[in-house]
Amino acid sequence: MQKEPLNLLFIGFGNVGRKLASILSVEKAGYSGLTGFSPRVIGIITRRHGALVNYDGLKLRDVLAFYQNNAGFNHKHPDFTEMDAKTAVNKLPYNVLVELSTLSIADRGEPARSYIQSALEQGKHVVSANKGPLAFSYLDLKLLADRNDCMLLHEATVMDGTPVFNLARTALYGCQITRVSGILTSTTNYILTAMEGGVSFDQALHQIQVMGIAEADPTYDIDGWDSAAKICILANAFLSGCLTPLQIPRQGIREISGRDIETNSGQGKKLKLIGSAWMENNRAAARVAVESIPIDHPFANIRGTGSVLQIETDLMSPLIIAHMSPGLNDTAFGVINDLLTISREFQRD
Amino acid sequence: MQKEPLNLLFIGFGNVGRKLASILSVEKAGYSGLTGFSPRVIGIITRRHGALVNYDGLKLRDVLAFYQNNAGFNHKHPDFTEMDAKTAVNKLPYNVLVELSTLSIADRGEPARSYIQSALEQGKHVVSANKGPLAFSYLDLKLLADRNDCMLLHEATVMDGTPVFNLARTALYGCQITRVSGILTSTTNYILTAMEGGVSFDQALHQIQVMGIAEADPTYDIDGWDSAAKICILANAFLSGCLTPLQIPRQGIREISGRDIETNSGQGKKLKLIGSAWMENNRAAARVAVESIPIDHPFANIRGTGSVLQIETDLMSPLIIAHMSPGLNDTAFGVINDLLTISREFQRD
Repeated sequence: MQKEPLNLLFIGFGNVGRKLASILSVEKAGYSGLTGFSPRVIGIITRRHGALVNYDGLKLRDVLAFYQNNAGFNHKHPDFTEMDAKTAVNKLPYNVLVELSTLSIADRGEPARSYIQSALEQGKHVVSANKGPLAFSYLDLKLLADRNDCMLLHEATVMDGTPVFNLARTALYGCQITRVSGILTSTTNYILTAMEGGVSFDQALHQIQVMGIAEADPTYDIDGWDSAAKICILANAFLSGCLTPLQIPRQGIREISGRDIETNSGQGKKLKLIGSAWMENNRAAARVAVESIPIDHPFANIRGTGSVLQIETDLMSPLIIAHMSPGLNDTAFGVINDLLTISREFQRD
Repeated sequence: MQKEPLNLLFIGFGNVGRKLASILSVEKAGYSGLTGFSPRVIGIITRRHGALVNYDGLKLRDVLAFYQNNAGFNHKHPDFTEMDAKTAVNKLPYNVLVELSTLSIADRGEPARSYIQSALEQGKHVVSANKGPLAFSYLDLKLLADRNDCMLLHEATVMDGTPVFNLARTALYGCQITRVSGILTSTTNYILTAMEGGVSFDQALHQIQVMGIAEADPTYDIDGWDSAAKICILANAFLSGCLTPLQIPRQGIREISGRDIETNSGQGKKLKLIGSAWMENNRAAARVAVESIPIDHPFANIRGTGSVLQIETDLMSPLIIAHMSPGLNDTAFGVINDLLTISREFQRD
């Protein structure tokens, strides 16, 4: 059906990248919705764990086993290369860049932002699970993509694979979104929920690190940077904003004490870290703040690692979309759904 | 941009039809997402309130005023006609049938089902806000639509305009849906919520009838028929089922007493009327039942006229989509979103 197969270049091969590779190879037969979807991965470039390139497509099943056995890629793999990401993005014959490296606030989304820009300048599609480039340069990158008739998709950047951007792009077509708000960071919501049960902040943080959900350096989550990046992407994508995480009011949960939780509980409320974006004087505004949520509000029952987004529009009454227990599969699905969207567009040409 | 304008034929002109006409005329300027969307309504056929036809497009603003002043259409309107729905569906030069009449369980979705079938047989697109035809004949109608290369869309049939089918069609592409469950009927959820506050069943029913949300004859809602029709549409659309509301286990809320509510409340639970559909031995199964929902479950905080649907898939962890206070606007938006989808497909031809 496809005129041209999807040739993917992965930048990054962390948890999400490896899960994605696994779904597309080892696990694929178990998912009937993926029948007939066979993109080739022609390159995987990591910053500290080596790189592989094979124009005919890497054998993902073997690649995963090799990575696990060797804690990365090295010269023993037949497809091993010394090529760096910048060269790969500029030289390899991929048609979709899949950006899977991690958020960098200090570097304002770099170097991923530059890679995405280079790919789009070459007329290649981009799928990003990395929040940074979208949080810092959404508008520039989107304009570049539109100018070059490429797709720039990023479903996995907010609420894992929950179809937030997809929902807005198709299902809410005809509505103008006026406000979005929600619980966007799993780590902080897990800690606040655990603290309701009497666990200390430090214990709760330790628990979620052991679960492998919080980063080894959980600062971005705890201090609200993760939520700030996500709400900026939402503000920029839905409200035509031009905000960056550095510009918006931001609060983390580091200062929340067990007593704060108890006091709120006594008043029938729960503390939640909420990202919000709205229109103010015809411009997008956003913030991240700890808010007291009444116990009968739909956000109150989003516990643990769950996340939720309320979408307000001009035409409809508020919609809520929630994800109860997102995991790696969900983030990987966000990328896959974007790839399927590109694949369908390819078929249509 | 459109090769051919959308020429709509409305069957029915109740609350939803009039709201839809109002959004497309009187209110349109206020909704920037509808800029450039100018379908023509060439006929409005009602069962008991007369009919209008004008091949150049009815003047909806005047039509609404006339309807209000005359409690329907009559020979004083220049576009008045004695044409019945069957004739209109077979003879008029519309390209989208908009079926807006009400659910009939006793007649198994007729006569709307036949109108939709006739339209599809002529190669015309169909948008239905009427649950009956989809609840009783989803598979036949869908196959007919596919065979004739027509669209059969019905976003407004479940959860008003909340993009349930749209979500599944695009945003969950690549996943297989394995189970759906939720609170699907506003009237029953309103009554159960009011009873939690000590109001009697009869008082609560009276309240919601005064609000104009329950039908004058609320039997379909109270006895679970409305939920049954909706869960059948979901089962048939998402799980390739072939179920009708007459075939599935169904419970209503007529027998629920204040004491039942209190007993559950004492156990940290709330009673909710839940529609569920799932796969069982490779076949779709469904039911409607009153269920005890733990107070910290996301369904528990869906109060009053709110509705909610949990979608389980093979690839992702469960998603929840909720609507807190749906109104007529939302149902009308469901129809408009379907019309926009057809309009975009037209542009693509």
